[in-house]
Amino acid sequence: MPKKIFFTPGPSALYFTVEEHLKKALKEQVLEINHRSRQAEAYFKEATDNLKELMNIPDDYHIFFLSSATETWERLIQNCIIEKSFHLCYGAFSNRFYDFAIKHGIAAQKAEASFGSIPTNYQIPQDTELISMALNETSAGVTFPVEEIYKIRESHPDALIAVDGVSAFPAIDLDISRVDSAYFSVQKCFGLPAGLGVWIVNNRCLEKADRKQAAGHSIGAYQALPNLLKNAKKHQPTYTFNVLNIYLLARVTADMLEKGIDVIRSETNYKGLLLQHLVDTHPQLSHFVEDESLRSKTVVIASTEGPSEAWIETLSKKGFVVGNGYGPHKGKQIRIASFPTHSKEQIELLVDIISSITL
Amino acid sequence: MPKKIFFTPGPSALYFTVEEHLKKALKEQVLEINHRSRQAEAYFKEATDNLKELMNIPDDYHIFFLSSATETWERLIQNCIIEKSFHLCYGAFSNRFYDFAIKHGIAAQKAEASFGSIPTNYQIPQDTELISMALNETSAGVTFPVEEIYKIRESHPDALIAVDGVSAFPAIDLDISRVDSAYFSVQKCFGLPAGLGVWIVNNRCLEKADRKQAAGHSIGAYQALPNLLKNAKKHQPTYTFNVLNIYLLARVTADMLEKGIDVIRSETNYKGLLLQHLVDTHPQLSHFVEDESLRSKTVVIASTEGPSEAWIETLSKKGFVVGNGYGPHKGKQIRIASFPTHSKEQIELLVDIISSITL
Repeated sequence: MPKKIFFTPGPSALYFTVEEHLKKALKEQVLEINHRSRQAEAYFKEATDNLKELMNIPDDYHIFFLSSATETWERLIQNCIIEKSFHLCYGAFSNRFYDFAIKHGIAAQKAEASFGSIPTNYQIPQDTELISMALNETSAGVTFPVEEIYKIRESHPDALIAVDGVSAFPAIDLDISRVDSAYFSVQKCFGLPAGLGVWIVNNRCLEKADRKQAAGHSIGAYQALPNLLKNAKKHQPTYTFNVLNIYLLARVTADMLEKGIDVIRSETNYKGLLLQHLVDTHPQLSHFVEDESLRSKTVVIASTEGPSEAWIETLSKKGFVVGNGYGPHKGKQIRIASFPTHSKEQIELLVDIISSITL
Repeated sequence: MPKKIFFTPGPSALYFTVEEHLKKALKEQVLEINHRSRQAEAYFKEATDNLKELMNIPDDYHIFFLSSATETWERLIQNCIIEKSFHLCYGAFSNRFYDFAIKHGIAAQKAEASFGSIPTNYQIPQDTELISMALNETSAGVTFPVEEIYKIRESHPDALIAVDGVSAFPAIDLDISRVDSAYFSVQKCFGLPAGLGVWIVNNRCLEKADRKQAAGHSIGAYQALPNLLKNAKKHQPTYTFNVLNIYLLARVTADMLEKGIDVIRSETNYKGLLLQHLVDTHPQLSHFVEDESLRSKTVVIASTEGPSEAWIETLSKKGFVVGNGYGPHKGKQIRIASFPTHSKEQIELLVDIISSITL
């Protein structure tokens, strides 16, 4: 049976070079080495150096490895918030960070919009310690305009700004120097197996953790920012982490640098437009996100006439795996990922196939 | 170049069937599937069913997947301790759990012994909420006798007992029904790539988490025991976890069941004796753990005459990778893992090689 192509919004198709890298890793026994060995340190350094170049991350920002983006929410709460946070919520994931803060006893506030739009007319208190938003809400196919983030930066210079870039980085450009923290997991746009989160922070986040600790609060143990920094300076993790994924991240980011981030981003635009056009023109599909300027280029959502499961099943039989709607939208939508591993030709093929289907 | 054999005490040699399973996983696109798909649920269920059979885990105990054993310490603290814990400490890892508790604001107490022995003449307060010990202290090559654990169980019926089985399970037998929680990571005796922790708990742990939460304390968010249980009932994780490792764990535990746990354990005894005999008889090696009854069968430590780096390098050139001493013992010891993947023949070969070396 030929392999299926996964257009699911994460986990998704592996980056097209991963299989080859993985076979090489087996041959070179990367899966057996110590996580604090020179060899593992070299992968750690290469992965962070490549990420800095690929995403234009300032030199004085730090990159740490966690188990997932989900874990990052908890670590941001433990390290960077004492009392108050503010969350822009417009889908499952942006809301979940808010929920985590509440569960950890933070007096969190949010501005909420329903799936498919973003909050408007909200007031962020000047004394909030951290402001969060998702660059791309994977559950709702909504992009949060980067210009809005920069405006919040200017109007709230004292708050830390933490951006969820899970299904956006590195395909969507964000000026990291204008936020304090950004994070993502590797099973979306980076096309790696699931099981690794990447957390970018600046020194303001580290200073906040120091202040929180000095004030007598716990900032956790092995994933406390000072401990993450101490180990990262040696290119070492704080626990026996997923060495294989660090190796693969080093290799895939090298491949992406060779291809060029500008090429990846212009292809992302082109593929996004193709998919948007498909939804525009197909008689049985319609845009879930009404405001064109908010439509994601990496996770395109189409509301389906009739149950979306019929679409998913029909496409699966032809070898194309697309995602279902998220949470309350299950059965009503298909979600299509257009990540860097998805070639223009694959997206064109998918568009042709869907165009030819009437259910 | 022929492959090296890793006798390091974790990460260590892959279980000898892993490479084949991994190639099959690539072919079957296991690395691309959704972590909440039916397919992933089946791997989750198979892995937990197999573990229950392999380790004779009672039916009413629950198995959850975390990112590492290190994470388990934090989750035990968050969920199962309000004020007081007691830690038996005799090496880097048993001490680290105590350190984590202190960092999380717990009034933790410990009974400490230096590397190479275990605490004696200690009093565990009757009102302690949780008692911890490591079945096998990987850093010190010390085994904690299971009979001691059972005695603590009888003398402290109200406390929760949590056993670190990291470099012991499933090679070393522990009656899980006589403790409340046990945990391990998969890169030791299970021979998997690093990046997955397994946490076993009984209902007393869950009830404790409920009581802690009801008393107004935070028990965390996604890794809170009630949330782990809610998801595990559906055979689902609480975050986008390492699906590949769940698949490999299901396959390797099936292989171990086919081989038979009794065979694995009797081979562990035999290999342990071979390595102990080597240290007994080699003129330039001596036992670090003086009390024979405390010597680990899975991580054997030999103090070396002269710097241990010379031994490690000489063996590495011959294709055998052994571990260095841990922490303050670096340069003074070699640590040799004898895990289920290490065949009797491999251990015999290693013993022959080391016997023939004089440095």
